[in-house]
Amino acid sequence: NSKLKIFTLTGNEKLAGEIVEHLGIELGKSSVQRFSDQEVKINIEESVRGCDVFVVQPTSEPVNENLMELLIMIDALKRASAETINVVMPYYGYARQDRKARSREPITAKLVANLIEHSGANRVIALDLHAPQIQGFFDIPIDHLMGVPLLSDYFQSKEDLKNEELVIVSPDHGGVTRARKMADRLEAPIAIIDKRRPMPNVSEVMNIVGEIKGRKAIIIDDIIDTAGTITGAADALLEKGATEVYACCTHPVLSGPAIERIENSQIKELVVTNSIQLPDAKDTAKITQLSVGELLAETIVRVYEHKSVSTLFD
Amino acid sequence: NSKLKIFTLTGNEKLAGEIVEHLGIELGKSSVQRFSDQEVKINIEESVRGCDVFVVQPTSEPVNENLMELLIMIDALKRASAETINVVMPYYGYARQDRKARSREPITAKLVANLIEHSGANRVIALDLHAPQIQGFFDIPIDHLMGVPLLSDYFQSKEDLKNEELVIVSPDHGGVTRARKMADRLEAPIAIIDKRRPMPNVSEVMNIVGEIKGRKAIIIDDIIDTAGTITGAADALLEKGATEVYACCTHPVLSGPAIERIENSQIKELVVTNSIQLPDAKDTAKITQLSVGELLAETIVRVYEHKSVSTLFD
Ligand SMILES: Nc1ncnc2c1ncn2[C@@H]1O[C@H](COP(=O)(O)O)[C@@H](O)[C@H]1O
Ligand SMILES: Nc1ncnc2c1ncn2[C@@H]1O[C@H](COP(=O)(O)O)[C@@H](O)[C@H]1O
Repeated sequence: NSKLKIFTLTGNEKLAGEIVEHLGIELGKSSVQRFSDQEVKINIEESVRGCDVFVVQPTSEPVNENLMELLIMIDALKRASAETINVVMPYYGYARQDRKARSREPITAKLVANLIEHSGANRVIALDLHAPQIQGFFDIPIDHLMGVPLLSDYFQSKEDLKNEELVIVSPDHGGVTRARKMADRLEAPIAIIDKRRPMPNVSEVMNIVGEIKGRKAIIIDDIIDTAGTITGAADALLEKGATEVYACCTHPVLSGPAIERIENSQIKELVVTNSIQLPDAKDTAKITQLSVGELLAETIVRVYEHKSVSTLFD
Repeated sequence: NSKLKIFTLTGNEKLAGEIVEHLGIELGKSSVQRFSDQEVKINIEESVRGCDVFVVQPTSEPVNENLMELLIMIDALKRASAETINVVMPYYGYARQDRKARSREPITAKLVANLIEHSGANRVIALDLHAPQIQGFFDIPIDHLMGVPLLSDYFQSKEDLKNEELVIVSPDHGGVTRARKMADRLEAPIAIIDKRRPMPNVSEVMNIVGEIKGRKAIIIDDIIDTAGTITGAADALLEKGATEVYACCTHPVLSGPAIERIENSQIKELVVTNSIQLPDAKDTAKITQLSVGELLAETIVRVYEHKSVSTLFD
C-alpha cells in the first residue's frame, strides 16, 4: 500500500484537524498564501510522490476562493506525482445550480464537477449533496455520505425528547426522502410542509400534510441558507398544534439574516454539522454543531484500504 | 454569417462599453449577481442561439471571482447553443505561475487554460501574456495582441520627447524582446537593468548594460505589480546619468504599495493600458491610462469575419 497523507486548504482547517486526530496522523505540510495581487500561492512542503493524498476542502463561502484553492492544489499534487488525489468536500458549493430551471441558465454544479475532475482528482468524498444526481456529474468514483445518522443519533440521545411523541417534518416536497430516513431511525411519523401559491402574485399558503397535533416536531433539511423557510415552517407547525419545534440540517450555510432569524424564531434548537465551520460569533445559544470528523476519518480509511464505505451507515 | 454579440462580466465593464461603442452595437443583455451566500448568479437575457459570442473579462483582481464568472458564463452560453464562444481576456490572471520554479509548485497558468477550454470556449483573445508560451497551453486558437504599438505611439506623439535622445530600458533580462520592439518603433537604442546577487544573502547589485548617459529613459514592462522593480530601476537610471525617466506597461496590476511608490518615485510619468481598469482613486497625477478598446474591437471584427489579426500590427 502507498502512504496515506491528508492535506487541508483554508476551507475548514478545524475539521481537517479533527480528521487527522481521529486517524492518529499529522497533517501534510503545505502552505496556502496570497500574492500581493491576491492570487493564490500554494506550496506543498513535503514529498507526495506515490502517496494516496486526501485534500480536505468544503467549498463554502467564499466559494470561488475555496474552489480555486482546491483546483490549484490538485494541479500541484498531480505534477508532484501523487499516486491518487482524493477530494474530501463535505460541502459542495454551487450544488443548488444543478439544472436549467430557466432558459440560458448555467448548470454550475456540473461545471464544478468538470473542473475538479479535469484538474486531476481521482475520487471525491461528499456529504449530503443537494441532489443525489450530482454524483452522476462525475465520471470518477464519488462516495456520498449522509448526515441523517449523526443528526438522528443526537436527537435520540437527547433527554428532553425521551418518551415524547415526535414527528419528523420536511420543509418542502424535495426533502421528503430525507425526512423518511430520519423518521425510520427515530421511529416517528413524517409530515410535509406543502407550500402552494393559489394564483400568481397571491401570497403562499402553508398547508401541512400529516399529523402534528400534540407532537414535538423536528424539521430536517440539507441546507439552511437564509433561514426564511425553516423559521416560517416553525411558525406554521406551532400554529397548527405542534408543542415544540426543533430543526436540523447538514450544511449550515447561514448567510445574510439567518442567525438573527433563528435566534428570534420559535425554534427551540438548531442542530447542524461542521461541514461548514461557523465563525465563533455565530455559535449562538440556539445552535448545536456536531462534528463529521469521525465519519470522514472512517471514510478516508475505508477508501484508502479499498473497503466499502456504505457499511458506515448500517 | 451568424450574428455577433458582445457580453461583459464584471471584470472591466468600462472597457466592454468602449469596445461596443467602437463596433457601433449594443452590449448583449445579461446580469451578473450574487446569491445571498455569494455564489455567482448569471442570467443571459437574450437569445444567443447560433450567435458568435464574445465575452469581455480580464481576470484581474479579484482574480478568482472574475475567473469563476467567466467559466460560469461560458457554461451558460454553451448550453444556450451559442455557435462560437470567444473569450476576450486582455489581462490573464495567474500568468506568472507559468512553470515549476520549485518542486511541487502548481502551474496555475496552464490550469486556467484548461479550465477555460474545458468549460467550452472556442477561442481566446489575449494581450501581452506574461510568457508567449502560454499560447501553447491552449489547444484552441488564441490571438495574442501586443501593447507595444499603442504605448510607442503615445510616446512618439508626446511633445516633450520630440527631438530628444531616448533609450528604451528593460527592467530585467526577461523583457528585452519587448524593449527591442519598442526601440524599433521609436528608433532608439536599448539598455537592460542587469540585477545580480553576488552571493546569497548579499543585497542585489543593479548594473546597467547599455548607454544611457544624457538620455531620457523609457522603461517598459508587461506587468507592474507592487512597483518595487520599476521605481528601483528609475533610481538606478538617474544615478547613472539618465536625464529623465518615464515608465510604461500593458497591465497595471498595481497592488499593495504600488500607487504610493510610483507617486513618491522619480518616475516622471507612468503610461499603462486599461486591460485592468484603475479605480478612480488610483487615477493619480502621474498615471496615464490608454484604451485598448479600439484594438480589441478591431480584433473582434477580424475574428468574426475570419480575417487575419496579425496585420493589426503592421
Ligand atoms: N446559492 C444559491 N442561493 C440561493 N438560491 C440558489 C443558489 N444557487 C441556486 N439557487 C436557486 O435555487 C434553485 C434550486 O433550489 P431547489 O429547488 O431547492 O433545488 C434554483 O432555481 C437556483 O436558481
Ligand atoms: N501573483 C503573483 N505575484 C507575484 N509573484 C508571482 C505571482 N504569481 C507567480 N509569481 C512568482 O513570480 C515568478 C515568475 O515571475 P517571472 O520570473 O517574472 O516570470 C514565479 O516564480 C512565481 O512564483
